Amino acid sequence: MSSLPIEQVVTRLSRLRQDIRAAGVDALVITNLVNLRYLTGFNGTAGAAVITGAQCHLLVDFRYVAAAREAIADAPIELAIVDGTYDDALNAAVQASGATAVGIEANSMTVSRFNRMATALGAAVRLVPTERVVERRRAVKDAHEVRILREAGRRLSSVARHVRSFVHPGRTELEIAADIDRAIRAAEFERPAFETIVASGPNGAHPHARPGVRRVQEADGVVLDFGGVYDGYCVDLTRTLQVGASAAEFVRLVRAVEDARVAAIAAVRPGARPSEIDGAARETLARHGLAEAFGHGTGHGLGLEVHEEPRISKLPGALPDEPVVPGMVFTIEPGAYVEGLGGVRIEDDVLVVDDGCEVLTDVPIDL
Amino acid sequence: MSSLPIEQVVTRLSRLRQDIRAAGVDALVITNLVNLRYLTGFNGTAGAAVITGAQCHLLVDFRYVAAAREAIADAPIELAIVDGTYDDALNAAVQASGATAVGIEANSMTVSRFNRMATALGAAVRLVPTERVVERRRAVKDAHEVRILREAGRRLSSVARHVRSFVHPGRTELEIAADIDRAIRAAEFERPAFETIVASGPNGAHPHARPGVRRVQEADGVVLDFGGVYDGYCVDLTRTLQVGASAAEFVRLVRAVEDARVAAIAAVRPGARPSEIDGAARETLARHGLAEAFGHGTGHGLGLEVHEEPRISKLPGALPDEPVVPGMVFTIEPGAYVEGLGGVRIEDDVLVVDDGCEVLTDVPIDL
Repeated sequence: MSSLPIEQVVTRLSRLRQDIRAAGVDALVITNLVNLRYLTGFNGTAGAAVITGAQCHLLVDFRYVAAAREAIADAPIELAIVDGTYDDALNAAVQASGATAVGIEANSMTVSRFNRMATALGAAVRLVPTERVVERRRAVKDAHEVRILREAGRRLSSVARHVRSFVHPGRTELEIAADIDRAIRAAEFERPAFETIVASGPNGAHPHARPGVRRVQEADGVVLDFGGVYDGYCVDLTRTLQVGASAAEFVRLVRAVEDARVAAIAAVRPGARPSEIDGAARETLARHGLAEAFGHGTGHGLGLEVHEEPRISKLPGALPDEPVVPGMVFTIEPGAYVEGLGGVRIEDDVLVVDDGCEVLTDVPIDL
Repeated sequence: MSSLPIEQVVTRLSRLRQDIRAAGVDALVITNLVNLRYLTGFNGTAGAAVITGAQCHLLVDFRYVAAAREAIADAPIELAIVDGTYDDALNAAVQASGATAVGIEANSMTVSRFNRMATALGAAVRLVPTERVVERRRAVKDAHEVRILREAGRRLSSVARHVRSFVHPGRTELEIAADIDRAIRAAEFERPAFETIVASGPNGAHPHARPGVRRVQEADGVVLDFGGVYDGYCVDLTRTLQVGASAAEFVRLVRAVEDARVAAIAAVRPGARPSEIDGAARETLARHGLAEAFGHGTGHGLGLEVHEEPRISKLPGALPDEPVVPGMVFTIEPGAYVEGLGGVRIEDDVLVVDDGCEVLTDVPIDL
């Protein structure tokens, strides 16, 4: 595993300090562990940081002291070892910073923790809920991240080229999923990025089906959705295989979804809004009479998390419809799901570049 | 996968209603998805419930309507389909309930969501942070859960009996971990309960080591920590293998940890406090001169989550030291970690019964 280069840490902290000033606070408390990893390189199951204009204090407990020292190496970060509770250590670090307006990550901090902090810090410190401060920066990948994601996309494509050999009549979805997971590890991914989906025949009609004991049958469509974590970064790919000769209605679904995929990828360029990219897929499916068959968003950002910003969607609850910019990496995954008949989903990963997008996954639609 | 029997749903909702009254609120909003599953049987990646003295409304989006209908079946739960955002649907359900004092799960609800809810509901509804309402109930398993956990313990023990054959000089930690994961799936677990730990030689000194490319060597100690999810419930087991003849200091660690395990299990009985059980392990290790070598808690609850209540610990940040009661299931996992030498951890799962405890895992210490 390569560690985070010090120049990336310096750049990320410097950008965060711009964001801290823009938010009108003196300090930002980082408790979201993925954001903590992004900013400092430290990757553990516990930890926190207090970042001001001048300093970055990383708080870890005894279990992670060695890992944290190695992660931060010569970066401009000071390590503080938690020897009581994280709450106490965090409050002490906030007080020591001298900050009086302190941002917290409202989208991940719990109400319990916020109330405990507010009580302990008292009137001298004003806690200010902030939203998406680090997440917005994470959405735009730097050169180091793009290199990792390109390599991860290449490796996941090579896994995909082998999955047809796993799918035969008589095999269960669970057996096929286990083979895919093994291939993901053999390709030197750290682990699958999520629970691999193998949805055969009518099960394919459920976008979030879990693999079960159903055996693949002749003339089934089989949705295979899998991903891997490579050097910390997630990639994600879906293909829908046809086992033997499919029903004509199913072939129609495959063609419609493939058209939607092409239209959505063609819509990806700097300045395009997520709603436009999503709309390109959705309108294509509507022209095929499948408007009702596509119930999820067209894509999601990929990075340290398998679902992160941007969301390529215009469904309710989506984020603000901010235009995409070069460096963003996300999935394009239109689908069509018809109860009784089955489902089709095709998913690739794209990187926004100056003149459009680069597709990071490269494997034929029919494998 | 067996679904949750209706009588369990009825009992759990009835107990929750006692807790709602005791908390002095009219309704409780459930947003923690594990708690939601425990109460309703519905298991998805999104969902919420509003529970009053008279009604239980389960809110799910279109993706989960079929799964939710199947999960709740004839239980006294009404399904509400979210067709905008969850926030809007939840606020509407709270308003429709007529409740004016509404508990929220402060330990999992984010500050963002709390603030959005409070703003939308206005002065007519008072949101009351609650802590551990469902978690405390979940800590005490009912007969249905005990049956599942016993079977899971039996299956994990049978996996453990095979792991010695995976550990040979020249094999990497990652290869051994992949074999263990395969054996877990072959034993019909849904999936490993966490990332399997294989920590060989000096790597064993780090309790949370991740398996890497180090190859097992002659005279290594190898910590193997693995678990599985069976019918939704997690079990967890650790053994430390000696490859060939170990150093005398290492054998001393193994004996000390085994003594600590025996002492801790002997301390488990209704009325014992977590600090006493933890103390039994810790004092035993101290008598062996290893007080400093045991830096983590003695155990954690097992259930729908692999780490839940009770926490068998007296380390800072632990929960209140409430006595254990029959039906609680948790790990006993003392360890000793010495930089340069390696580490030893031995972990079993126990069920508190009227006259002490029943050990759910059953496999020799040396496999």
